[in-house]
Amino acid sequence: MSELRFDPVKRRWVIIAAERALRPDDFVREPAPPPTANCPVCPGNEKYTGNEIAAVREPGSTPNGPGWKVRVVPNKFPVLRVEGALERSGKGLYDVVSGVGAHEVIVETPDHGQSLADLDLESLLAVLKVCRGRLVDLTRDLRLRYLMLFKNHGSDAGARLVHSHSQIIAIPEIPNHISTELRAGFEYFRQKERCLFCDVVRQESADGERLVLDAARYVAFVPFASAFPFEVALYPRFHSHDFTSLGDEDLLHLASAVKDVLLRLRAVLEDPPYNLALHTSPPAHPRPGRPGTWDSLQYDWHWHIEIAPRLTRIAGFEWSSGFHINPVSPEEAARFLREGNHR
Amino acid sequence: MSELRFDPVKRRWVIIAAERALRPDDFVREPAPPPTANCPVCPGNEKYTGNEIAAVREPGSTPNGPGWKVRVVPNKFPVLRVEGALERSGKGLYDVVSGVGAHEVIVETPDHGQSLADLDLESLLAVLKVCRGRLVDLTRDLRLRYLMLFKNHGSDAGARLVHSHSQIIAIPEIPNHISTELRAGFEYFRQKERCLFCDVVRQESADGERLVLDAARYVAFVPFASAFPFEVALYPRFHSHDFTSLGDEDLLHLASAVKDVLLRLRAVLEDPPYNLALHTSPPAHPRPGRPGTWDSLQYDWHWHIEIAPRLTRIAGFEWSSGFHINPVSPEEAARFLREGNHR
Repeated sequence: MSELRFDPVKRRWVIIAAERALRPDDFVREPAPPPTANCPVCPGNEKYTGNEIAAVREPGSTPNGPGWKVRVVPNKFPVLRVEGALERSGKGLYDVVSGVGAHEVIVETPDHGQSLADLDLESLLAVLKVCRGRLVDLTRDLRLRYLMLFKNHGSDAGARLVHSHSQIIAIPEIPNHISTELRAGFEYFRQKERCLFCDVVRQESADGERLVLDAARYVAFVPFASAFPFEVALYPRFHSHDFTSLGDEDLLHLASAVKDVLLRLRAVLEDPPYNLALHTSPPAHPRPGRPGTWDSLQYDWHWHIEIAPRLTRIAGFEWSSGFHINPVSPEEAARFLREGNHR
Repeated sequence: MSELRFDPVKRRWVIIAAERALRPDDFVREPAPPPTANCPVCPGNEKYTGNEIAAVREPGSTPNGPGWKVRVVPNKFPVLRVEGALERSGKGLYDVVSGVGAHEVIVETPDHGQSLADLDLESLLAVLKVCRGRLVDLTRDLRLRYLMLFKNHGSDAGARLVHSHSQIIAIPEIPNHISTELRAGFEYFRQKERCLFCDVVRQESADGERLVLDAARYVAFVPFASAFPFEVALYPRFHSHDFTSLGDEDLLHLASAVKDVLLRLRAVLEDPPYNLALHTSPPAHPRPGRPGTWDSLQYDWHWHIEIAPRLTRIAGFEWSSGFHINPVSPEEAARFLREGNHR
C-alpha cells in the first residue's frame, strides 16, 4: 500500500506510491510512447479497465460495454486506494498516513481523435456534469479531505494516455497550495469583509489588459503574477466557493468558457501540452475533536480553474526556491490570447 | 527591466523576466540544441561572455583571457540586474518590486567534456571556494535578501549550456521554500531548544535505511518524504546555518561528499539530468524599520545541499496541489545508491 509522508523541514506531504517496485533501469530507458493502436479506454476495450464507476450512456447500452459518451473508471495504477483503514502514525520525527484515497479517470469522449477543445457544448456539459457527480459522491467519504480534479493534455504535460481524459485524486490531507489559498481568502475576508477572489476578478475586469475572456458569468485572465507563460485563470463572476453547488445552467456557461479558452490556447500555441486543475473548496467535514476546522475557511474561498500550457521546464532555481521565472509578460500573453483567431 | 510580482492568492513572488519579448512562436518551435562546436564559456571564447566577476587563474594569465580553472561571469540573459533602484510599489491589489538582483554563471572547469562529478578533489574544492567567495561578496549588497546557488545538469534539468556550470541568482525577497524551512527550524527550536535539522541527521544516522553516505563531517540520505525518485540531501553533521562561514578544511570534506554522491547517482542512473541547490541562511540584513527580522530565524536553520535527478515529469496534480507523488520508495532508492558501484 502506498503511504503519505510528511516532511518536517519542507512542511509538506508527499505520496510515496512505490507499489510497482520501480528499478533504476525504469528511469534510464525512455518511456514507451503511449499506444494509439490499442487504446485501453476506447469503446470496445472496456475489458481493459476496472468496473466503471459512472457513465453517460446511450439508451439500451450496458455498463462496461460500448455505447457511452463519458465514462469514469478506476485508475489502473492508482496512487491511493479506497480500501483499508486510514491510519496516522509517527515514526520518530516523521509523520505517516496510510495511502487511503481514490484515483479515478474520466474518459471525456469515446472518440480517440477528439480533444477536450473539440467537444461540442453538449458533450462538454456532459463531462462537467459527470465531474460534478463524482465530486459529490466522493465528498461522502469522510476520510477524504481534498478532491483534486485535473487534466494532463499531451505527454509533455504528463499524460500517459493519448485519449482525452481527466483524473480525480482524492486525498486524506489538504494540499499546501490549497491551504495557502484558503488562508489567503480567509484572512482577507476577516480584514475587509470582501472576497479576495471577487476583488481580483473586479480588478482584472477593470484593468482589462490581462483579460482573455469577458463573459456574462465567467471571466478568464492571465494572472498578474503568472508563474508560467500563457497561464490562464478562469473564475466565476459570482461568488461561489463550491463547484459542486453549480446548477446545470452555470455548467453550460462554464462549458462555453472552457472551450473558448482551450481553443485560444490551441490557436496561439499550436495545440500546446497543458495542465488544467479545478480549485474548489474542500469537503466541509468536521475533523474528529475539531468540528468545523475547514468550515471557517472555505466559505471565503472562490472556486476557479487554472490552465497552464507546459512550455518551459522547471529547473533548479524554481525547484529549490519555489520562486518561478516567467519569460513572457502576462499582458503580452493575454493580448495574444485575446487576439488569437480561435474559431 | 524585469520585475517581481506577488500573487495575493498563491502568496508567492514570481520573476517576470520578459525583456526578450518572446512571441508564441518561440515556444512552438523546439528549442535548438545547445551548441557544442562553439561553446561560449570554453577557454579562448572569453569575448562571448561579459567581464569576468571572479576567477581562479594560472599565474601570469590575465582576466578575460584563457588560463583559468574556474571562472564567474554575468549571465548573458539575466533574469535580474544589479543596476537600478530597488522600488516597491502597489498596483491595486497587487505588489511589485523592481527586478534588482544578480545572476551569475560559475564555469566549473575549462574542460568542455568534464562534468562536476569528474573534477578531482582539488578542482572541486576550487569551485566551492569560488562559490563561497561570490556569496560573501553578494552578501554585502543590502538590497539582496536571498542568494540561491544552484546547478542544472543536462537539458532535461533545464541546462542551456552543455559546459559544466552553476548559477547564482540573488533576489530582493526570501523565496517561499526557504522561509518555510527557516520557520520550521525556528519553531522547532523554540519548542525544544534543539535544531530540527540536527535531529533529522541524527534520526537518519540511527535508522540507516535511507543513508547514502555516512562520512565524518557530512551525511547524505534520501529524504524520508522525498518528492522525487532518488533525491538526495547532503547535510553537515555539525550545526551551521551559514555556508559562507565554512573553512577550507570543511570545504574539502564537502567536495569529497559531493563527488561521492554525484558519482553514485551517475553509476546507478546512468548520468541522469539533475538539479542541485544550496540552501543556506539569508544574509542577516536588518530590514528598514524591522531590525533583525531574519536574524531571529536564521540561526536555528542548518545549511544543506539538495540534489534531485530529473526522472519524472511534474504533471497536473503536483503542479496544482503542491503534493508530489514519488513512485520510488526512498529506502529502495537509498539502497541502490549505497550499493551502486561508483568508483
